[in-house]
Amino acid sequence: MPISETWLLPDGVADVLPEQAQVIESLRRKSLDFLASRGYQLVYTPFIEYIESLSSLSESNQDLDLATFKVIDQLSGRLLGVRADMTPQVARIDAHVHPVEGVARYCYAGTVLHTKPQGFNTTRAPLQLGAELFGSDSIDADVELIDLMISLIQDAGLAEGIHLDLGHVGMFRSLVAQAGLSKAAENQLSDLYQRKALPELQEFTATLNFGQDFYTLGRYASDLDALKAHLSAEVQNNPAFKQAFEAVQSTQNAIQARWPDLHIGIDVVELRSYHYHTGLMYAVYAPNRAAPLAQGGRYDGIGEHFGRARPATGFSFDLYALSAGKFETLQTVVAPKGTAADLVAAIATARSQGLSVIQLLGNDNFSSVPHATHQLVNVGGEWTVTTI
Amino acid sequence: MPISETWLLPDGVADVLPEQAQVIESLRRKSLDFLASRGYQLVYTPFIEYIESLSSLSESNQDLDLATFKVIDQLSGRLLGVRADMTPQVARIDAHVHPVEGVARYCYAGTVLHTKPQGFNTTRAPLQLGAELFGSDSIDADVELIDLMISLIQDAGLAEGIHLDLGHVGMFRSLVAQAGLSKAAENQLSDLYQRKALPELQEFTATLNFGQDFYTLGRYASDLDALKAHLSAEVQNNPAFKQAFEAVQSTQNAIQARWPDLHIGIDVVELRSYHYHTGLMYAVYAPNRAAPLAQGGRYDGIGEHFGRARPATGFSFDLYALSAGKFETLQTVVAPKGTAADLVAAIATARSQGLSVIQLLGNDNFSSVPHATHQLVNVGGEWTVTTI
Repeated sequence: MPISETWLLPDGVADVLPEQAQVIESLRRKSLDFLASRGYQLVYTPFIEYIESLSSLSESNQDLDLATFKVIDQLSGRLLGVRADMTPQVARIDAHVHPVEGVARYCYAGTVLHTKPQGFNTTRAPLQLGAELFGSDSIDADVELIDLMISLIQDAGLAEGIHLDLGHVGMFRSLVAQAGLSKAAENQLSDLYQRKALPELQEFTATLNFGQDFYTLGRYASDLDALKAHLSAEVQNNPAFKQAFEAVQSTQNAIQARWPDLHIGIDVVELRSYHYHTGLMYAVYAPNRAAPLAQGGRYDGIGEHFGRARPATGFSFDLYALSAGKFETLQTVVAPKGTAADLVAAIATARSQGLSVIQLLGNDNFSSVPHATHQLVNVGGEWTVTTI
Repeated sequence: MPISETWLLPDGVADVLPEQAQVIESLRRKSLDFLASRGYQLVYTPFIEYIESLSSLSESNQDLDLATFKVIDQLSGRLLGVRADMTPQVARIDAHVHPVEGVARYCYAGTVLHTKPQGFNTTRAPLQLGAELFGSDSIDADVELIDLMISLIQDAGLAEGIHLDLGHVGMFRSLVAQAGLSKAAENQLSDLYQRKALPELQEFTATLNFGQDFYTLGRYASDLDALKAHLSAEVQNNPAFKQAFEAVQSTQNAIQARWPDLHIGIDVVELRSYHYHTGLMYAVYAPNRAAPLAQGGRYDGIGEHFGRARPATGFSFDLYALSAGKFETLQTVVAPKGTAADLVAAIATARSQGLSVIQLLGNDNFSSVPHATHQLVNVGGEWTVTTI
């Protein structure tokens, strides 16, 4: 392998240089501090785990399993996975390691690895930051999480033109149960909804039990009033359907009350992580970006795999995406060599004021720090920071 | 696999729960901020790289290669390594990605993974934090790094009874060259020095070219004056030996001047990472701990693998070890449900004062947050935080 090849990085993996690292680091701190002020307690989850633990979600989510790098544990001979998502790990902590009675709130931030990029031009090593709430099945919990998600995006300076999408797996799921649909028909419907293929949907639902309702669900997926007007009474009175419908409605109202200017869209057949989620799903989109800035939803019972099924809702985002490729101009002060008390004191003072101060080494002169923006010079007996 | 097994973590891997995560998070921030104030710029390095890039050090350091988890890249079919040490990555950045002319200073913090624990009862996933300086071969650079290392340990509250060990690979190496020693003899000597096996050393060196000097080096390894008194003039006048000897001496003097109370020990045959390092080596030990709290040294030319050999010196430590198993008692305030303006304002004020405030959800009462330490109650029309 020639040297010139050696230092190329794998696709979807990148160094983060100082001008950008500074932006991401400060966003990371601000986000975690904000979540802490809301009662979300920080946890660090392990980078590797037995694959069985990481797959608590992947049983119902093959994508996660496929995204997980696997290695053999040289100590136990067992299969380890490198975390591809921290949510199942936090659920494990809630279930077993830190089993709080009542409501538990956790936040986390860390690199996750994916075997392949999850979308066009996306990283394989997102810096995932998220929050999870366990032990409450109240809509208030979802509203709290959505509110946090929007607040964090606003704090990151990305509120301009954003768009909240609300969905709920419960309407489609209850209708499937009510109609006694086969798994094959359910999958085909789900696919038609994803593709927004209305003519095909009409054809497919024509011969289906509750076919008209399935069509209506797709046709008026983004309009709760129209749904109410077109769905059959039998469907609307189904308790599971009713509960899901009202959950979307009251969440929309509560969020709109908190964020009067926010554009909120409804999509009751948005089933992107249908097998994973159990209730409300939420995602924030920015203009001109295909992938959501942040997304989450309810996944009650996730802890069942670990012996403790609890209501759960949460969201996460990629700090790289949220930092939106911003860069910060760094300031560096260069100070001359020496140990004279006044010089040492001047350097200490500048550092305590938050400046980055480098003192020259050996026989170096100021040119040895070409990225320096300022220097510490003695002007009339006073040490002063001046621009270069 | 029974459920009870599922949630067990692999050996040498652990969750970090809120009471400890808070301590480590704050130590991480404090350390990075301190390094920033000294002109060390933050970089984030990738979690996975082509194995050829990660092995820039491992060619001369088999341990690092053995410690590296390897996976196949599904995109390129090439072998990837999960970083086991961030130093070679930062050297790659200095060599290629961010080729600053003059002196470059970088700091970093992140999890590294080891296939096996590197010592008794140690983690396989240290949270490595470190600093590296490229482009200066001056002793001032080593002194700066050692000073930073001790300052960080002091800031972490672990200065009590610490002990700085200074070594230098140059004395042994130049003596080996001067004596024209075979590789086998060099390795055997290195092993005898490591084991501090003086009787064996005496026997082995008896028939060796410059044998008396090799014995003296081991016998008086921790005493520069005694070395001067006992080594042959021929050895002492060897320029490479002289340079190494003086480097240790002047580093010791410079550090002692900055840290008058610090215990500094010398060991010129401490060759723990002999193949990796090229000059001065430094490590800080705490009482009652076998592994060093922090360690580093000079590794000039590391960037050669990437086409740019520069002087380099740096150190790193494990944030978990430096946080010394400390825990913080977390405070949580619980506030009643409601959207009344005075309540919302009182919650916002408490949060802005750095308090962690949870507002109740659904029909929950205060008992739903059993870990709460305070509550927000209305006392005579005023919202007040009181202990529970």
